[in-house]
Amino acid sequence: MFFQFIDILGTIAFAISGALVAMNKRMDPFGVLIIAFVTAAGGGTLRDVMIGIEPVSWMKNMTFVYVVMSSAFFAVLFRKRINYLRKSLFLFDTIGIALYTVVGVETGIIAGLHPLICIALGTMTACFGGVLRDMLCNEIPVVFRKEIYATACILGAITYVVLSFFYEDKSILYVISGLVVITIRLVAVRFQISLPTLYNEEEGKDAL
Amino acid sequence: MFFQFIDILGTIAFAISGALVAMNKRMDPFGVLIIAFVTAAGGGTLRDVMIGIEPVSWMKNMTFVYVVMSSAFFAVLFRKRINYLRKSLFLFDTIGIALYTVVGVETGIIAGLHPLICIALGTMTACFGGVLRDMLCNEIPVVFRKEIYATACILGAITYVVLSFFYEDKSILYVISGLVVITIRLVAVRFQISLPTLYNEEEGKDAL
Amino acid sequence: MFFQFIDILGTIAFAISGALVAMNKRMDPFGVLIIAFVTAAGGGTLRDVMIGIEPVSWMKNMTFVYVVMSSAFFAVLFRKRINYLRKSLFLFDTIGIALYTVVGVETGIIAGLHPLICIALGTMTACFGGVLRDMLCNEIPVVFRKEIYATACILGAITYVVLSFFYEDKSILYVISGLVVITIRLVAVRFQISLPTLYNEEEGKDAL
Repeated sequence: MFFQFIDILGTIAFAISGALVAMNKRMDPFGVLIIAFVTAAGGGTLRDVMIGIEPVSWMKNMTFVYVVMSSAFFAVLFRKRINYLRKSLFLFDTIGIALYTVVGVETGIIAGLHPLICIALGTMTACFGGVLRDMLCNEIPVVFRKEIYATACILGAITYVVLSFFYEDKSILYVISGLVVITIRLVAVRFQISLPTLYNEEEGKDAL
Repeated sequence: MFFQFIDILGTIAFAISGALVAMNKRMDPFGVLIIAFVTAAGGGTLRDVMIGIEPVSWMKNMTFVYVVMSSAFFAVLFRKRINYLRKSLFLFDTIGIALYTVVGVETGIIAGLHPLICIALGTMTACFGGVLRDMLCNEIPVVFRKEIYATACILGAITYVVLSFFYEDKSILYVISGLVVITIRLVAVRFQISLPTLYNEEEGKDAL
Repeated sequence: MFFQFIDILGTIAFAISGALVAMNKRMDPFGVLIIAFVTAAGGGTLRDVMIGIEPVSWMKNMTFVYVVMSSAFFAVLFRKRINYLRKSLFLFDTIGIALYTVVGVETGIIAGLHPLICIALGTMTACFGGVLRDMLCNEIPVVFRKEIYATACILGAITYVVLSFFYEDKSILYVISGLVVITIRLVAVRFQISLPTLYNEEEGKDAL
């Protein structure tokens, strides 16, 4: 029950973020719906397809489908007021990637894959919806440029894998590694922490 | 027989549309062939992969492969005269999306998926080849901006699903829902009907 | 043993080529790693997913994963000196596409697919990593514009398929068709050979 509630919050945040990007690109209602859907379902779909879980999960989860459709509809309807919700959406989104990460890792473990692959699957589940959204909107994926998003997922996924060697109880694993993702992301955003850049100032100026 | 003939017409239209876009981007013969192929096969491939029909359908359908290759070759050869065929191509394309839509819905029903998912699969089969074509050509997918295309598919797919509760005979379902797609598209293009835009004039001017 | 060595060389070249493009786009370390991975694994992943080999091959091949990660790390570390390695990298890359091509064809043959599909799978395995890399970096795929790369793969794949009707011994097939790919590419680059363009000078000027 609790996890399903979290899941819905995350889906709402992902779907609305997709819808907002699509409206920024002035897409029509159909495009907005598709981008909302791709943002929310893309990571999990890629994971399922590469592991061989087919039909992919969301096709058997109508709650998910209804939540995405309602969120996209909501975003279109209140697109001018959605700014007021920015903080809630950021929080939902953070909760969402935390849950998506642990679900992705768990799926890999169930499929009997190597721990490193499980970590990749967790990160992919959380991040690739956004990557697909940006590709469809003809942008370089933002997650490749603002690394703290992915870093939080990777560290959460590592936590899950490491703890899974010691604990059997999945609820504990879910909560602890989920909290790792959430904490890192909140702290990083609050204190504007980011990984050291690969490129020095000079190079930066050249590019601009 | 009749459906196979229709299928080939649709494939030709999709492949040529892909080849034309690729040549507009000044791609080489290899690129033109690939884009033609992706445009014709992309929607069905995505559908098959997500449902778990593998190897994907076109790998076992050599007629399809030959038709796409010939169409791409034809488009390259007569690229300067293809304007004369614009009306025929538009008609083929309309027939093509109608057939692709019903085939997609039917595939979902056979896989035992929820009606809403079947509608999504029908629309995806018809529209995603064009989406992939535009992504490969570095454009925002046109189908997300000119919604009548997708709307026709969605309404046709809904028709199919609803009718399938009442009729057993698939030929009837195919013909009626196919005609719905074709009629909506032709009427919309003829009378320049489109969904009301999400963005008002002012916003529009800002963007331009 | 020998083939595994070749495989690693190819993977290194692909991963570094991905990392370099990603750094050109000023991506962060996470983005660089992902693009390196996608470049090296993309073609094979698409092939496996469309045929239905799941989990996809690289998920069960940790050597591959480690090689990609080390190569990306190496590319980031020595990004300013990597120019000195350009010739070696070009050679590795040529060897890499040769091997990827024959592996792709072979996978199709094992799956019992039509020879034409096998040729497509070989070319896809060799070329689609680069296509995905360019899509993620928001570029029109270079392979669609400089056709000699794909042409070499196609001819090598055809060689493999034709020879496979006459020879049983896979090592011979691998070596001969691999050498076809390598020779064509080296000769083409050395003598700047390319297919005749579809577009005449005039059209070219118009576009510029």
